[in-house]
Amino acid sequence: MTSETTGENVPAAEETGRPGLSRRGLLGLAGAAVGAGVVGVGAGIAVDRTLLGASTDASATYPFYGEHQAGITTPAQDRLHFATFDIAGDLDRAALIELLQDWTTAAARMTQGRPAGKYGPASGPMDAPPDDTGEALDLPAGGLTLTFGFGPTLFETEDGRDRFGIASRRPAALVDLPHFPGDALQDALVGGDLCVQACSDDPQVAVHAIRNLSRIAFGRASIRWSQLGFGRTSSTSKSQTTPRNLFGFKDGTANIKSEDTTVVDDQVWAASDDGAEWMRGGSYLVARKIRMVIETWDRQQLGEQERIIGRDKGEGAPLSGGTEFSEPNFLAVSPTGGTKIDPDSHVRLAHPSTNGGAQLLRRGYNFVDGNDELGRLNAGLFFIAFQRDPRKQFIPIQTQLAKNDAMNEYLKHVGSGVFAVPGGAASGSYVGASLFA
Amino acid sequence: MTSETTGENVPAAEETGRPGLSRRGLLGLAGAAVGAGVVGVGAGIAVDRTLLGASTDASATYPFYGEHQAGITTPAQDRLHFATFDIAGDLDRAALIELLQDWTTAAARMTQGRPAGKYGPASGPMDAPPDDTGEALDLPAGGLTLTFGFGPTLFETEDGRDRFGIASRRPAALVDLPHFPGDALQDALVGGDLCVQACSDDPQVAVHAIRNLSRIAFGRASIRWSQLGFGRTSSTSKSQTTPRNLFGFKDGTANIKSEDTTVVDDQVWAASDDGAEWMRGGSYLVARKIRMVIETWDRQQLGEQERIIGRDKGEGAPLSGGTEFSEPNFLAVSPTGGTKIDPDSHVRLAHPSTNGGAQLLRRGYNFVDGNDELGRLNAGLFFIAFQRDPRKQFIPIQTQLAKNDAMNEYLKHVGSGVFAVPGGAASGSYVGASLFA
Repeated sequence: MTSETTGENVPAAEETGRPGLSRRGLLGLAGAAVGAGVVGVGAGIAVDRTLLGASTDASATYPFYGEHQAGITTPAQDRLHFATFDIAGDLDRAALIELLQDWTTAAARMTQGRPAGKYGPASGPMDAPPDDTGEALDLPAGGLTLTFGFGPTLFETEDGRDRFGIASRRPAALVDLPHFPGDALQDALVGGDLCVQACSDDPQVAVHAIRNLSRIAFGRASIRWSQLGFGRTSSTSKSQTTPRNLFGFKDGTANIKSEDTTVVDDQVWAASDDGAEWMRGGSYLVARKIRMVIETWDRQQLGEQERIIGRDKGEGAPLSGGTEFSEPNFLAVSPTGGTKIDPDSHVRLAHPSTNGGAQLLRRGYNFVDGNDELGRLNAGLFFIAFQRDPRKQFIPIQTQLAKNDAMNEYLKHVGSGVFAVPGGAASGSYVGASLFA
Repeated sequence: MTSETTGENVPAAEETGRPGLSRRGLLGLAGAAVGAGVVGVGAGIAVDRTLLGASTDASATYPFYGEHQAGITTPAQDRLHFATFDIAGDLDRAALIELLQDWTTAAARMTQGRPAGKYGPASGPMDAPPDDTGEALDLPAGGLTLTFGFGPTLFETEDGRDRFGIASRRPAALVDLPHFPGDALQDALVGGDLCVQACSDDPQVAVHAIRNLSRIAFGRASIRWSQLGFGRTSSTSKSQTTPRNLFGFKDGTANIKSEDTTVVDDQVWAASDDGAEWMRGGSYLVARKIRMVIETWDRQQLGEQERIIGRDKGEGAPLSGGTEFSEPNFLAVSPTGGTKIDPDSHVRLAHPSTNGGAQLLRRGYNFVDGNDELGRLNAGLFFIAFQRDPRKQFIPIQTQLAKNDAMNEYLKHVGSGVFAVPGGAASGSYVGASLFA
């Protein structure tokens, strides 16, 4: 077991010659034990950044195994690479499980700052491709977390096929998102059988993780759509400062924070009595690629920008007064008539008091994807939110916003996905094992 | 002058009501003096990171004014936003100069960690758009540099028009790049009248800078193409560690370093006797967007990868032996026959000894722009190189590489541009003033 734990001098997996499995697949099978070993090693050197709360120590690592997957209540790292995957048409249940095992092995390694496989670029047989692509070889983990989710089409294809014998286990909460008013979704940016959210303070580490997971999945699953985010737009810990989105406003001031454990239990984690026992300790991820028409926004008066948001731009205080973390008073009356906070402002329409107490744990990122043919930046917010039940949280909130939000004039929702994110893998097991148990 | 220097309580420029100029243009005229003030302020607080060499201090700033533009020999920052701009058809010489003055003013402010204009998101008239978009309001400069260049079409349009009366001043070294074997350039990713290279250790700061320069240029110039880079692929200082490109190899080991002042003077800076006096202290920027076929590369044997590069993947040492910074010995013979370093390897073909001593100061970045419809990452290297004369440096080197480089199988050049980057602006003047003198 010692050699497995160090993970560098184990015989090449392909030498076992098990038929019908790719070299990657074999590596995955061998890797489950390695993964278990990693926990022991990792526990000694890992810094529990959930306690630290800040994202400043480049060498920080989060444990991969545990009750919940990391990357949800983990203090939001600075950079994102998100990808959804479609599974190859001929993959069966056993092969899907194997893919999840392979991904678990690689994720457990990479989140601890190690190469994706045993034979990295600096060692291993010269007549085989390296088990790691190498671009993160010299880089610390930067708090890398990898968070895996299952899309509705994993349970049942759009034409009703139960490819993996799990259609009956689809959680009631994993509904297809409805069409919202104003949606301008592009087919190429919607859905996916699986999703992986890679977050790190170093973008090269996040990119390396998605690239290697995609490489490991070769022939079994391929990227459907993907997104890089360069700046976090939410805090998920009280120890973090509030960042700004590309409207230039602070974003996520009222976000769920990991320290509010009662709220987290109530609004984020799926529970046993929610109807899908295998999802206990998990959550539901909604991703929305939201293009911002920033050039038009930038020509808007400061006063109008603040009316639309419902907060002042500098401090981020609600227009009813106070400072950033003051509770907005939606009844406060303006001397010029009407309420100080516009009823159609974003802060009012998104507020729990307007949504029956529903909240979201947001974990979004700013993005810029070049520019369009008119010279406008393809920029916006890659919205990610975790919640216990999209039927009670994202869907009613977004319905409210899509109808009335004064901000809609400057937004276009172009991508979308919803995923069941299972609880964390137990040491020695793999992500999603409860679904196949 | 005091109020100009603090820059927050000057009467709004639009009140002057000068006809025929946008509010932005007027701000720019007022701003020239402000810019001069900033130097004095900036000099006191600026950390000379050219001496520090490392890119770790988020609050570090580089002086904007000086003999050379910053962002060339400056130790390569971690993140990039590069954009080229096309000038509006009706802009005349005076208006072009005004745009350059406005950009200079804003660049001098932003590189010192200040908002792009006087009235930021936290102050200013509520009935006007803010002079700064706000998303970098709470962020230090992260070593931001803004480097401006002039494309061939600025001097003479493709149909031969001398729009700005500068056709006769086009430097002989600013040639149109030839078609190289294997080029797969996309029209939308080629050329531009102007370019701006924004580099910072914080991507949000780099994006903020390009966005605000684009906003300031509204109606006068618009983005033609643009690129974000998440990871630097070169060191430009001996104090920096060598980063890795997306082939997983160390890149830029043999790059020109700012400490080699003789080489820098010989290979990077344009001199008086080069034929265009106004370019003295400037340089020529070549940008190439190079897509890497990383999925194919990742399935290649480690030994073959190393043969193609001519270095080992872990350490980055030449295959003739030694360590990363050992000089490659292209004559060293392998026990199995032939030379240890393949004659068609990248390291040999790009080496000064194969190119009559020609070198480049490379300043490239890794990029990932989502994925294609086959699930492959749109990934690669955004190559940027500075040099004294592209006719003697980039063009012959790239001709050599394009014909023979073993790496070509995994590369596709899709974007391209060449720009004359003038020397730095003198305090109180503007970038490119020497061209219009």
